[in-house]
Amino acid sequence: MSHPFMKFRFNFTNHYRIDLIVTITSKSTLAHLGEFGLISRLTAEVTTHKSVITGIGDDAAITSLSDGMQLLTSTDMLLENVHFRRRWHDPCLLGRKSLAVSISDIAAMGGIPRWALLSIAIPADLPLEFIDGFMQGFLAMASENGVTLVGGDTCLSRSGVAVSVTIMGEQYPELIVRRSGSMPDDDIWVTGTLGDAALGLKLLEEVANSRPFEKEGQGGDGFSYLTSRLLDPTPSVSVAIALAEARLAHSMIDISDGVLADYGHIAEQSRVGGRIFLEYLPFSSSFRRCAADLPAIPYQLALSGGEDYELCFTSAPEDRKKIVACTKKCGVEATRIGIVTNLPGVIAVNPDGSHYSAQTEGFNHFT
Amino acid sequence: MSHPFMKFRFNFTNHYRIDLIVTITSKSTLAHLGEFGLISRLTAEVTTHKSVITGIGDDAAITSLSDGMQLLTSTDMLLENVHFRRRWHDPCLLGRKSLAVSISDIAAMGGIPRWALLSIAIPADLPLEFIDGFMQGFLAMASENGVTLVGGDTCLSRSGVAVSVTIMGEQYPELIVRRSGSMPDDDIWVTGTLGDAALGLKLLEEVANSRPFEKEGQGGDGFSYLTSRLLDPTPSVSVAIALAEARLAHSMIDISDGVLADYGHIAEQSRVGGRIFLEYLPFSSSFRRCAADLPAIPYQLALSGGEDYELCFTSAPEDRKKIVACTKKCGVEATRIGIVTNLPGVIAVNPDGSHYSAQTEGFNHFT
Repeated sequence: MSHPFMKFRFNFTNHYRIDLIVTITSKSTLAHLGEFGLISRLTAEVTTHKSVITGIGDDAAITSLSDGMQLLTSTDMLLENVHFRRRWHDPCLLGRKSLAVSISDIAAMGGIPRWALLSIAIPADLPLEFIDGFMQGFLAMASENGVTLVGGDTCLSRSGVAVSVTIMGEQYPELIVRRSGSMPDDDIWVTGTLGDAALGLKLLEEVANSRPFEKEGQGGDGFSYLTSRLLDPTPSVSVAIALAEARLAHSMIDISDGVLADYGHIAEQSRVGGRIFLEYLPFSSSFRRCAADLPAIPYQLALSGGEDYELCFTSAPEDRKKIVACTKKCGVEATRIGIVTNLPGVIAVNPDGSHYSAQTEGFNHFT
Repeated sequence: MSHPFMKFRFNFTNHYRIDLIVTITSKSTLAHLGEFGLISRLTAEVTTHKSVITGIGDDAAITSLSDGMQLLTSTDMLLENVHFRRRWHDPCLLGRKSLAVSISDIAAMGGIPRWALLSIAIPADLPLEFIDGFMQGFLAMASENGVTLVGGDTCLSRSGVAVSVTIMGEQYPELIVRRSGSMPDDDIWVTGTLGDAALGLKLLEEVANSRPFEKEGQGGDGFSYLTSRLLDPTPSVSVAIALAEARLAHSMIDISDGVLADYGHIAEQSRVGGRIFLEYLPFSSSFRRCAADLPAIPYQLALSGGEDYELCFTSAPEDRKKIVACTKKCGVEATRIGIVTNLPGVIAVNPDGSHYSAQTEGFNHFT
């Protein structure tokens, strides 16, 4: 059915063709561009890789897996006003993020991201600049991570922008890191810092409600750092692959729902439990600066805020030095935040040893 | 980012969690079901295949390509009120069609369909029966075609139902059939009959407008046959693979936009032209019966109606007998409808030899 993006021409998905939108008169929208123009814009900057036998332009893309590797696949859907707001999200950053969150899934298994498929539903009145920006960001993220866009689908949307990305990667079977490999007494590690994206969202919401969260003159840098962690996350690809290749991670997941929920998936699938110590949670300086205005450290944001796209992994206590060296080599700081336990259940522990009662439902984005 | 469907538990995509919809009170909607229930419903009937190393339940699915085969991938997005109408489309048939149209893309390259990813955006008030029916149809189509559902994504939709399907298949490189292999003087063939789905849509629209298209008592069977061709298309998998394995097809495409546009893609990518003879177009008896009520045979529906999901392929004139035998073995009738020409341009030819002036934009579905 689909028309993967074609080299020189393009159809909207068969059911909905360009003649439906010629009634739109603005010169900066799809109607002016037409289907031929749209495909040119979407795919003008697509680069390729030797693993791609036939990319955009046939019924399906043809790609070649490396000898001995297995295929890793994942897919995500992003809907306007559910997953993102157009007024907050620069189209270029939205394009970047649309792919980043999927790349993050391949990374979380130690996989090498390779090929992407992009479907996008476009409202008839969407400015062309949005599409240009989106693709620019998408393809930059692809290029930064060695990913080739090999196909996709477009259609006109009657409501907002809808994006669906499928990512494919590969890895040798013995290097793939699952959620199920944790063992009791393993350390629980995270990369980078936690809670930045959730605090960034809180800041955006405060601004939207005209109740600036940060004190004047104090948090300009913090604002842009924290919101960029939300709007332009970086998938932790190289460090994930390095950990996988060094066989240091027993289990791994990317932190998209907050470390409590995501480590919870590891715990469940590994049939273990865990204790996460709040005093060990890594915070950015921007997070700390903003948090200084609050009555208490917003642990909830760090535990359940989501969208950090950092890695949570577990590994043997005897490998601590190796892990520090391995992650440092990738320019990433890893922090031990807890231990894997035999008993089921994931417990967050306050600095005084008492149990922190976390809201496990986490932070609801864009609601 | 995504949570591929998990074995025993399930998250909505991280940004939008179940606590957002507990305000919905109906007992037959998502709110009553909850996230654990949703995943159970979605994946209860998923079966698997030995090529699936890890299916639903980790950051990405892990699958294993057969030795020496290449990977074929394609993706399609289906939006409510753009690609389908809920009042016309039984959820089970919608589930079937959502996968069928993607399988059709793999078939069109001679590929063996293997694995699918399903993303679905669900309005909060969608009856659970819809989800049940959809998955029942989706998984039946998967099972009929040897496809395993290996992952996906779900989220709440603020407008209608949105479905995005990615299909993956495999084939030996030397058996993959591209659009680009046609040679001048090849025959142009199609499988099955043309125009049924487009006429089916016309009938549904007429009924919706309370202007029954068919005469009373005449077309009951025709109505259900023609509308089922629209609402429940069958991807031509076995015949496509048989043609590919016998190396009979020089080029191949599935007919989703009407044979004129789709053969046009072959012509363009093969740098050839073509003549399609209207008198050779294969029509179903239902199509003929309904068409008898019209002032002229609605060639336009057969040429540009789309959604037939039959195959169009080209092959050497000396292989005619082999093609008839090969397709017959698969229970499919193939019809020669034209010839590949050296000159560019695809021309439809009337029975009297004059050129038929076709509307190349085709039939606009669900508009």
